Amino acid sequence: MASFSDIGTAAAINILSAIAFLVAFAILRLQPFNDRVYFPKWYLKGIRGTPTHSGAFVNKFVNLDCRTYLRFLNWMPAALRMPEPELIDHAGLDSAVYIRIYLLGLKLFVPVALLAFAVLVPVNWTGDSLERTRNLTFSVIDKLSISNVSSGSKRFWAHLVMAYIFTFWAFFVLYKEYKRITNLRLHFLASENRRPDQFTVLVRNIPPDPDESVSEHVEHFFCVNHPDHYLTHQVVRNANALAKLVEKKKGLNNRLNYYQNKYDRNPSKKPTTKKGFLGLWGETVDAIDYYTLEIETLSKEEATERERVLNDPKAIVPAAFVSFKSRWAAAVCAQTQQSSNPTIWLTEWAPEPRDVYWTNLSIPFVELSIRRLIMAVAVFFLTFFFMFPILLVQSIANIEGIEKVFPFLKVLIEKKVIKSVVQGFLPGIVLKIFLILLPTILMTMSKIEGYTSLSSLERRSAEKYHLFIIVNVFLGSIVTGTAFEQLKKFLHQSATEIPKTVGVSIPMKATFFITYIMVDGWAGIAGEILRLIPLIIFHLKNAFLVKTEKDREQAMDPGHLDFASSEPRIQLYFLLGLVYSVVTPILLPFIIVFFGFAYLVFRHQIINVYDQKYESAAAFWPDVHRRLIIGMIISQLLLIGLMSTTGAVLSTPFLLVLPILTITFHRFCKGRFEAAFVKFPLQEAMVRDTLERATDPNFNLKSYLQDAFIHPVFNGGEIDRPLAFDQEENNPLVLTKRNSRRNTPSQSKHGSEIGSEAGPQ
Amino acid sequence: MASFSDIGTAAAINILSAIAFLVAFAILRLQPFNDRVYFPKWYLKGIRGTPTHSGAFVNKFVNLDCRTYLRFLNWMPAALRMPEPELIDHAGLDSAVYIRIYLLGLKLFVPVALLAFAVLVPVNWTGDSLERTRNLTFSVIDKLSISNVSSGSKRFWAHLVMAYIFTFWAFFVLYKEYKRITNLRLHFLASENRRPDQFTVLVRNIPPDPDESVSEHVEHFFCVNHPDHYLTHQVVRNANALAKLVEKKKGLNNRLNYYQNKYDRNPSKKPTTKKGFLGLWGETVDAIDYYTLEIETLSKEEATERERVLNDPKAIVPAAFVSFKSRWAAAVCAQTQQSSNPTIWLTEWAPEPRDVYWTNLSIPFVELSIRRLIMAVAVFFLTFFFMFPILLVQSIANIEGIEKVFPFLKVLIEKKVIKSVVQGFLPGIVLKIFLILLPTILMTMSKIEGYTSLSSLERRSAEKYHLFIIVNVFLGSIVTGTAFEQLKKFLHQSATEIPKTVGVSIPMKATFFITYIMVDGWAGIAGEILRLIPLIIFHLKNAFLVKTEKDREQAMDPGHLDFASSEPRIQLYFLLGLVYSVVTPILLPFIIVFFGFAYLVFRHQIINVYDQKYESAAAFWPDVHRRLIIGMIISQLLLIGLMSTTGAVLSTPFLLVLPILTITFHRFCKGRFEAAFVKFPLQEAMVRDTLERATDPNFNLKSYLQDAFIHPVFNGGEIDRPLAFDQEENNPLVLTKRNSRRNTPSQSKHGSEIGSEAGPQ
Repeated sequence: MASFSDIGTAAAINILSAIAFLVAFAILRLQPFNDRVYFPKWYLKGIRGTPTHSGAFVNKFVNLDCRTYLRFLNWMPAALRMPEPELIDHAGLDSAVYIRIYLLGLKLFVPVALLAFAVLVPVNWTGDSLERTRNLTFSVIDKLSISNVSSGSKRFWAHLVMAYIFTFWAFFVLYKEYKRITNLRLHFLASENRRPDQFTVLVRNIPPDPDESVSEHVEHFFCVNHPDHYLTHQVVRNANALAKLVEKKKGLNNRLNYYQNKYDRNPSKKPTTKKGFLGLWGETVDAIDYYTLEIETLSKEEATERERVLNDPKAIVPAAFVSFKSRWAAAVCAQTQQSSNPTIWLTEWAPEPRDVYWTNLSIPFVELSIRRLIMAVAVFFLTFFFMFPILLVQSIANIEGIEKVFPFLKVLIEKKVIKSVVQGFLPGIVLKIFLILLPTILMTMSKIEGYTSLSSLERRSAEKYHLFIIVNVFLGSIVTGTAFEQLKKFLHQSATEIPKTVGVSIPMKATFFITYIMVDGWAGIAGEILRLIPLIIFHLKNAFLVKTEKDREQAMDPGHLDFASSEPRIQLYFLLGLVYSVVTPILLPFIIVFFGFAYLVFRHQIINVYDQKYESAAAFWPDVHRRLIIGMIISQLLLIGLMSTTGAVLSTPFLLVLPILTITFHRFCKGRFEAAFVKFPLQEAMVRDTLERATDPNFNLKSYLQDAFIHPVFNGGEIDRPLAFDQEENNPLVLTKRNSRRNTPSQSKHGSEIGSEAGPQ
Repeated sequence: MASFSDIGTAAAINILSAIAFLVAFAILRLQPFNDRVYFPKWYLKGIRGTPTHSGAFVNKFVNLDCRTYLRFLNWMPAALRMPEPELIDHAGLDSAVYIRIYLLGLKLFVPVALLAFAVLVPVNWTGDSLERTRNLTFSVIDKLSISNVSSGSKRFWAHLVMAYIFTFWAFFVLYKEYKRITNLRLHFLASENRRPDQFTVLVRNIPPDPDESVSEHVEHFFCVNHPDHYLTHQVVRNANALAKLVEKKKGLNNRLNYYQNKYDRNPSKKPTTKKGFLGLWGETVDAIDYYTLEIETLSKEEATERERVLNDPKAIVPAAFVSFKSRWAAAVCAQTQQSSNPTIWLTEWAPEPRDVYWTNLSIPFVELSIRRLIMAVAVFFLTFFFMFPILLVQSIANIEGIEKVFPFLKVLIEKKVIKSVVQGFLPGIVLKIFLILLPTILMTMSKIEGYTSLSSLERRSAEKYHLFIIVNVFLGSIVTGTAFEQLKKFLHQSATEIPKTVGVSIPMKATFFITYIMVDGWAGIAGEILRLIPLIIFHLKNAFLVKTEKDREQAMDPGHLDFASSEPRIQLYFLLGLVYSVVTPILLPFIIVFFGFAYLVFRHQIINVYDQKYESAAAFWPDVHRRLIIGMIISQLLLIGLMSTTGAVLSTPFLLVLPILTITFHRFCKGRFEAAFVKFPLQEAMVRDTLERATDPNFNLKSYLQDAFIHPVFNGGEIDRPLAFDQEENNPLVLTKRNSRRNTPSQSKHGSEIGSEAGPQ
């Protein structure tokens, strides 16, 4: 078991690396030539342009103004300054709600930590269980944990009461948050401007008709069944092959640009390339000519394919976007069943045009069932047989294990400092590396499951990832051994035995998780703000590929919040906090620092960097809430297990009430709030329809919707964003902040903040 | 363990009692004075009247025509003769689908039994496991079961393959049946005549409004949010107190009738009664005067209360029946969310007016959550602590136990015949008596849960009862001990250990379940057709209370299919059949006889006797299907447990595939069919609206719906049945069979069958 000084060393290392990252960030972001890496959001919004001032040439690349360096931590208060409504307006509701998860962590754990330190730490500290068992070595952390309370002691009542208080506090915080986010969502949806998806329903599994084309069939069906409301529809074309061609052409274009830039800079030597794979072997040819020719061929191919997709009736898949005359009618159609056969004419709210996952629109019902079965089995195997990485981590984390495997390392490892480093640092980082590989696999699995929007794909992936983290990271770290071994063990244990086995090990693993929090949480978040990889890639692209200002625009990679992989990781921190709040409260400050720091960093990132691919209006919150509830129930069951092994068996019935209450609370919240995330109430729709009819009676909705839902390859990859903007700005009735900000940037808080701080404009 | 001759005795007793019941039935039903007990359905339909022919006086009471007695089993083919469409028309879809459950049992188990007897019985019989273990006594039944296959034998592959074949056969049968019933339901709904509930939505949790009454608030809300479709609405008044008064008055009226009849028959003596409880003590008064006065007082009280309920705005509960101009609009409103707060303005399909459970219409959302939590806990305790009855059964079923408790009975019990009787007969019947008490308790619990229609109340009660039966009857009989002890045991066993413990005991309990099937199934069903209790009550009423023809009409108690208590019991037979199909196939014929006999009896009953209280158009089928799936999964898990203890450990992975397949099959069926039972497709609604608009353009829907949903006390307890009849018969476009049958009864198959056989008309 790691001692207190191990933890100290680990903390020092992680704090130092976090500070190093922050300093690097502070310096790098002040350099104008990094501007597009650290402030892409403002470029995309059109508020910030490439520095074009008349100062010295060197100023264009390096910031020589020393005063700005003195204020290098200024971004922190700046990140907090933007008020939430403006943040929602600026970065979208998804992002704004996402960072509220971190805030929720603070709201939940700060009072819990205060109370735990006031009550439980003294109770544990004055216990004498560990001192009495002489032959056991123990650290300060163990002395602060529940292990130090002797078996059967009356002191356990303190833990019991605290468990209740913490649970009720969690109920209160979670309820408030769910309510707040529901209101934010409803308000966001209500104040949104006209958007195509408000009037549109995605219809899938259109049955084949021998006499009519898909388009005619859709039109007839909705003309008959929604006679007063049907407006228009767009069929979906299978443009997957075309999209591949376009993607390929883009790659070739990049290469052509690269060689042309090379040639421009050094006109004496014509660049050459080889014809084979990745230009590594094959016949040597003139690179520019070769790629120009290749692109020409591909362009022709693309044109043929485009022609085919647009004209071939076989390219039309049995799905369509059907638009209605009013939001009310769309809400009605999305929520009702159309045909007596519930597997055809399936209707659902159309996702935002940007959010549509086009590849999955045409999967038949039976195939969908089979796909989901196969994926469920696959997730099970992935979760329980992804064991080798954890096995590795476990053996490395064990210093004696290393000595056994590599006896020659013994001298080195036995040195105190190195031992601390190995023991404090390695387990976390190895685990982390393995976890990085996972989200892509899970996303692919979700895609196979056939969800039709990017947002639902991310939500499904997050669910799988969460399961994986609970089994492999949380349980895997507590109960040593691979997930498969655990499963076997659990299957051969009784239902009451499992929480005991796991619960008993919990106090002993506190130090491991503290290190994990520092590596993954603290240093990881500091690494996030540095954006090292995007920074390098941007400069590489800038050096080799960029020719025009537009290229530079495209070379920017603002990135985005990756819900599918980062939210389940936050859930792990919540789970750790909940589990250890009663057992080893000393862990809580580490979690609180993580939540606070992460909140700060991500708030900065969503203001200045990230550009979300779509906006789902916080549709993920019910998932977040559910996973928090799962965390609470796990923590309660483990506490029951732990308590029943410490001679406080009497506590079991008292503690058993907690999971029942938690489930009830969840059901109540679900009934009270979830509908707001799934359905669209008719009353709201009617209010907005009426309002719009009054303010804009002559608006031509049909032409507005005509091309709203079209595969991105047909309009050059840029979907409707400009449309939405124009809409907003041309609407004379709604004054947008964005508009006024653009005209007077220096008056806007953030315009000014960034202007004064970041660049010597 | 009971021997084969015990079973034989039990079978003989049960077959004899079943035959006795049948003979009694055959004789009793031919007596004209029992006509209203055995053919009430036809009286209610108005097709049959009290025999008024001019024959001898005695003919009115006793059937002296010997020929009819010779054909005393004629009711059996007669019950089968009515074709299904006519049956649906005659008895309603609920009843017709209900008896299809028995038919499903036959379809499922007859081929399974044939195959099991062809393959498994020889395999088991030629095993030698039991003969080798000399010290064990065993019966023929054991020799036919899986216990006779020696441990680790290759013969287990036969059982494994059979388990697969049976599962796939069950999938096939269940899928076909679900499909058929979905079609029946859709067809039934489509061919139904105009009914008020097609146009109406039940709105609950109407938020209070300080400025408007409930009625105004409803009208405004729906005028705004369904402007083109809203037609009218009816508020719901809290008439529970009034209903009680009416009920009380009815009781007093009965007594008055009783004394008046007494006085009429014996005018010499004025009947007297006592004022106290049940007329047992207190001041003696003239009965007729006393009750006349009482009724008068009560009538006044009732009038005042009626006045109050009708005029007091406080008597209006926050619920209403809102009607729309078309079925389409009602379908839309029922399926969509109205307000952004999902706990107010809750809409759902209005139940049939007869089906409404008025008391529960006004429960607020939060209270509903709490009620359901409390009831969930209550069901748990009821299920697991309802132990004493089972304990008793278990100790009685054990002949040695009786001898120990009552040593003086030893001489008696040791006699072979009596021993067989006790061992074969008692366990079943004691269990049965306890089970009779249960449905009422469960129904009360469901009522507390706040469901708003009788049909949903029955479905919920059935769910609870099913849980109870699985835990207490099935598991309780297999694993000896009370449910609570089992729970404790299971909690301390591993997940893989539980199926083993239960599985091992299964073959040993085959004889017990065979007796149970004979007592509960065979004799029970024969008792059902005899209708002994309704027979006695009818004749008592007839003797003391009946004065007019209308009184006689009311004295009839046709009864009805009690879904809540009888469906879960059928499920037990399915479960037994599924569990024993592989283990002890000898049990299957007993189950097949039960299903066949029950099908016959209940088909007879729904044709001639039962009068359903409401029609839910087979809304219960998804529940039946789900419980069948649960039965399949239980049987598969137990088979895994059993096989893993017989040395056939290798079979576990093969068998583990079965529950996964079963769950997938269930999800597929759910997706494919369930919507037809929950939602009302817009396409169907539109077709019917259009048709109706074309055929009957001037129909005044508003006046038709005006008083459709009104508490039964306001229209004398008779809800809308006459309305529906009139509707149907006055509609010139639809020719009803019923109409023609009434005019020419002798031409209708059943009219003639009954006429020729039952009465000397």
